[in-house]
Amino acid sequence: MSTKPNTPKGMRDFLPQEVMRRNHIMGVMKTQFERYGFLPIETPAMERRELLLGKYGDEGDRLVFKLLNSGEKVKKADLDALDKGELSRFGNSLSDKALRYDLTVPFARFVVQHQNELSFPFKRYQIQPVWRADRPQHGRFQEFTQCDADAIGSDSLLLELEFIQMIDAIFGDLQLSGCTLRINHRKVLEAIAQLAGAGAETTRFFTTLDKLDKVGWEEVKRLLLEADFDTDILDKINAALEGKSNIDQLDVLGQLLGTSDSDHDPIQDLSFLFSNLEQLNSTTVVFDWTLARGLDYYTGTIFEISAPEQVTVGSIGAGGRYDDLTGVFGMKDMSGIGISFGLDRIDLVLSELDLFPPTLYTSIDVMVVNFSMDMITSLIPYINELRKQGKRVFVYPSAAKLKKQLGLANQLQIPYALIMGEEEWKDQSCTLKDLNTGEQSLIPLARLTQHNWD
Amino acid sequence: MSTKPNTPKGMRDFLPQEVMRRNHIMGVMKTQFERYGFLPIETPAMERRELLLGKYGDEGDRLVFKLLNSGEKVKKADLDALDKGELSRFGNSLSDKALRYDLTVPFARFVVQHQNELSFPFKRYQIQPVWRADRPQHGRFQEFTQCDADAIGSDSLLLELEFIQMIDAIFGDLQLSGCTLRINHRKVLEAIAQLAGAGAETTRFFTTLDKLDKVGWEEVKRLLLEADFDTDILDKINAALEGKSNIDQLDVLGQLLGTSDSDHDPIQDLSFLFSNLEQLNSTTVVFDWTLARGLDYYTGTIFEISAPEQVTVGSIGAGGRYDDLTGVFGMKDMSGIGISFGLDRIDLVLSELDLFPPTLYTSIDVMVVNFSMDMITSLIPYINELRKQGKRVFVYPSAAKLKKQLGLANQLQIPYALIMGEEEWKDQSCTLKDLNTGEQSLIPLARLTQHNWD
Repeated sequence: MSTKPNTPKGMRDFLPQEVMRRNHIMGVMKTQFERYGFLPIETPAMERRELLLGKYGDEGDRLVFKLLNSGEKVKKADLDALDKGELSRFGNSLSDKALRYDLTVPFARFVVQHQNELSFPFKRYQIQPVWRADRPQHGRFQEFTQCDADAIGSDSLLLELEFIQMIDAIFGDLQLSGCTLRINHRKVLEAIAQLAGAGAETTRFFTTLDKLDKVGWEEVKRLLLEADFDTDILDKINAALEGKSNIDQLDVLGQLLGTSDSDHDPIQDLSFLFSNLEQLNSTTVVFDWTLARGLDYYTGTIFEISAPEQVTVGSIGAGGRYDDLTGVFGMKDMSGIGISFGLDRIDLVLSELDLFPPTLYTSIDVMVVNFSMDMITSLIPYINELRKQGKRVFVYPSAAKLKKQLGLANQLQIPYALIMGEEEWKDQSCTLKDLNTGEQSLIPLARLTQHNWD
Repeated sequence: MSTKPNTPKGMRDFLPQEVMRRNHIMGVMKTQFERYGFLPIETPAMERRELLLGKYGDEGDRLVFKLLNSGEKVKKADLDALDKGELSRFGNSLSDKALRYDLTVPFARFVVQHQNELSFPFKRYQIQPVWRADRPQHGRFQEFTQCDADAIGSDSLLLELEFIQMIDAIFGDLQLSGCTLRINHRKVLEAIAQLAGAGAETTRFFTTLDKLDKVGWEEVKRLLLEADFDTDILDKINAALEGKSNIDQLDVLGQLLGTSDSDHDPIQDLSFLFSNLEQLNSTTVVFDWTLARGLDYYTGTIFEISAPEQVTVGSIGAGGRYDDLTGVFGMKDMSGIGISFGLDRIDLVLSELDLFPPTLYTSIDVMVVNFSMDMITSLIPYINELRKQGKRVFVYPSAAKLKKQLGLANQLQIPYALIMGEEEWKDQSCTLKDLNTGEQSLIPLARLTQHNWD
């Protein structure tokens, strides 16, 4: 019996139209990344297991895909760990390599490993799939593509400014208006955490706040109370900020928290950003003191982009500044800022809002109808001339019924058919048929490549 | 202590210039694939383990990368197999998924799984990495990218003809002349095997002949003798074909082997191809009866492309016709033809022959020199206008020393610097400096976007 073939759970094929949609989005990103001076890099699918584990928290560690060692190496299986039910230790004894979980840790490793080959500040972009052994659900996949841009080796706020403008340019090019970019600063959050619970644990404050989208404000307050934070102060902050502009919110918060004269006072930094934002086209930028972001390595500005309200897919891009991403690999003092866009979610949003350009799926310009091997071989030089001009030509490989051939042209959304039947054959001409309008023109073969199509 | 970070053995990072080289090659392929009417698809990195194993021979099975099951599933470890030293059975008990080993088996699975969503004949291209747990060596990597094009659902020889022309067009666009495409037909080989050893095993004939490149003719003959083949006949064939043109070789061989009147007589098919080959630009096509190709699924024409003689990397592309690729998945009678190009090897060849276009590495058009945050923020609207025009602009993020900023521009091969110092600031102009010639022009800011660069 033959195996019934299918993709494994959580894995997806992409049919031509899906690839075209994805390529369109990636093309826009790539273009804007390059206009903002980022250079492309790529890292391998596999990293050393020890390099990845411990970087994404316990939850992340469980979701890292591990490769099974091959050959004799599996003899090193730690059966003692298996006996004791220490399954991850058992797994580790069988695995030296793991699949990348995001593009950030590999990027940090890349920067440290190649520091002598790179020039700093270094701006790179990277568009590659990542893998997570997550439970598959709407908008969440085990294999998905991240589009990352990072600038490392400078703590200048100009980068924050450029990132916001680049984000806006990308969504503008994608025709996606109505996105919201929420921005906050880890040091603002720290100051609020201090204010609300001098003795309590700051990171607990972040991780609790990070649940806001999922559980709501009342539940977050309950959890913060439980963790010894004074939530009355938080309510007061909310009341004081309500209805105010971004700049005014920052003023109020500055008075509440006090500003410092240091080079990088967080309130002053955010105010600088809001007062220097050029006219944005498609994105609304708002200050949101409740934005926390889950990842440990952020130390400065943090931001998250949500799709227009009518689509519910969660964040479609997020990022922030980190002062010591490469420190864990022994390279200190490399401040940087990065953003990661989720290709798959952006595809969902654009599909749901029907925002792909209508010409996207026209990927073949003309079908050459095949009446006989003789006629078609005599056409080959002309066909190849069309191809040299850039035309994408599908030659029907056999002399099937005309109806069948044009049926395929229709399914593939090919706009023109090139027909050379007995009649045309005799006087060395061909018929070019517009398959949308049905209009036909008779063209001498010798003038085929001069014909003006649109 | 910090972990010393590096890529695992057999895995590679790609620095910006390497990515640019690879993108150049893939861009050429993609363009030609589309001109020949192929549509893009993608398949996931992981397939079900059972789907991959048994498709690539024993050697292949050993080289397939297996994913370690996660969570509780590792409890199913088959310790009995481990005890008995049956390591691959032990490994299988810990792994449900594996990384794709090539793009052909996933393509066959894809066609069967999505047969109701596809229109046939179906022409697809697919450019994705594959993974093999091979011993790393020159031109052989554990992760490498294949560029495949396949046409399935037609047995027309027109496809063979189009494939050869497409191959030539690709190498033409890559400026790589002097490649040789060797072509043969499995049924020709079968007939020769019959002639040389009626009682002997045909597949043994193929696999032995497939070693020719590595071990040479004398050793192949010794191995064939050992396998009960009459090698005198083979020497006679060689003698009869020596010095003859492709068409003449086929004539001679047709007389030796006899031709049939069937629809697809292999000698007639090959003769048809050679007599209908349009003028090729960069590739020499030769008939080579000794070409065997390792893979089982080929049933018709087979071909292999080698780089110009001065570079030694082995085959840079290969393919052939298969009549029953999807049969193992329960879908019969789907004849097809495919080719697979090795991106990494083509990159090696083009690098060694210095054939990349000189402008390839110019990926930023202009660096904006930064004298102060004030001046640079006032420049932002102009910078963004340049970007909207398509210019790739690297704004130096901080007011570092001019020498340092221009040093980076130099390292990144940026051709222009845009300078607005105190002087220019006063009269709202800027200096555009050609970093190759040193030439400078003073341009009023308001006219910056109208300035004509080349």
